[in-house]
Amino acid sequence: MTATDKRTDRRRGAQHGTERSSGTRQEQRPGVQNGAERLTWKGGTIEAPLPAVLVTSGTMDKANVMTVAWTGIVNTDPPMTYISVRPERYSYEIIRDRREFVINLPTAQMARTVDYCGVKSGRDTDKIAACHLNLLPGEMVRAPLIAECPLQLECRVRQEMALGSHHMFLADILAVRVDPSVVDPSGKLRIDQCGLLAYAHGQYFALGRILGKFGYSVAKNNKKHR
Amino acid sequence: MTATDKRTDRRRGAQHGTERSSGTRQEQRPGVQNGAERLTWKGGTIEAPLPAVLVTSGTMDKANVMTVAWTGIVNTDPPMTYISVRPERYSYEIIRDRREFVINLPTAQMARTVDYCGVKSGRDTDKIAACHLNLLPGEMVRAPLIAECPLQLECRVRQEMALGSHHMFLADILAVRVDPSVVDPSGKLRIDQCGLLAYAHGQYFALGRILGKFGYSVAKNNKKHR
Repeated sequence: MTATDKRTDRRRGAQHGTERSSGTRQEQRPGVQNGAERLTWKGGTIEAPLPAVLVTSGTMDKANVMTVAWTGIVNTDPPMTYISVRPERYSYEIIRDRREFVINLPTAQMARTVDYCGVKSGRDTDKIAACHLNLLPGEMVRAPLIAECPLQLECRVRQEMALGSHHMFLADILAVRVDPSVVDPSGKLRIDQCGLLAYAHGQYFALGRILGKFGYSVAKNNKKHR
Repeated sequence: MTATDKRTDRRRGAQHGTERSSGTRQEQRPGVQNGAERLTWKGGTIEAPLPAVLVTSGTMDKANVMTVAWTGIVNTDPPMTYISVRPERYSYEIIRDRREFVINLPTAQMARTVDYCGVKSGRDTDKIAACHLNLLPGEMVRAPLIAECPLQLECRVRQEMALGSHHMFLADILAVRVDPSVVDPSGKLRIDQCGLLAYAHGQYFALGRILGKFGYSVAKNNKKHR
């Protein structure tokens, strides 16, 4: 088979390979034809779903909170994250100067707070008071935790990069703080019991049903080979 | 009120501020006491939910696919994303050399494929064949699109940063490719009809119910002020 044949076959949905049994079959989404034309839009920030986290900065006595969706994990060892922030935002200078922040993972119940803390500025509004949020002290940083969130990452800025509209703060994750009520008796974090919230293209979603856990697609084969 | 009073009150859940009506009330999660002790774990990559995307690289004739959860948006203008990749992965050298890749957003139906493409290496397995994936040509890059995914970001690497276990590729989003079946008659992307998948601490989730759209927490106030 030539390269061209292979390409043509792939586009028609032909099945290749010797790993057929360990592969997985795609169900066709209703109304979607494989190979159907794709619209081409100019570049945009349509990656989804993303976390929408509450970022706290400052101190217990003078704290601010803002919502950030431009965040994620950038490195496993050492554990590192980032937040991208517009320099106009009130939290920007606090984080730039203190080089510390906390990422608080909110629940679906907190969607309205998440939205509010993304729309309003700490320059005009004490958002922590307005949203009736409770603060807890950080362990490794002076920035506080939001008690209503089940999980926190305490972060220290390693590097700041100006990218255009946003500055990216690359940061080490110094500590993870966990509400004991989402840890099972064996000490395992039950992320499915956290009721987390996701952000996708201007909408907030609750997490839905569990589809599987990492490695499940090959778990049967592994047993066979043992 | 002194700073100390304010802090003490906040920890007890007192309500401050003049924005009470525009603020949002937190319901207490069952079994969670505000101010309850937090466990302190060492730093880790527990940020969630994250996207789990299929990253394609290479060409239509010789493509590879891998799953990446260390990805997100880093800048709005110009639109920029990143993927963090272990240098040991098969796709790493392809992306480093070609400086192009495509981020394909998979559906919940594709969870098994997402998992498989994260566990298996393109060195040993033609994952595109094994998972019966169909390819479509990119518009701005030579790397192909996965036809089964409703949305794609075509990306060009701007910078590579070695962070430790992973190298981060910072990239411009050159084009967004969209399956016409998830665009409504007015031309609006219906992200809620994409059936996207999320990743959280080793588990895959479907997106659940819509909680609100960006700005909804202040929408009533806006009307009032018009």
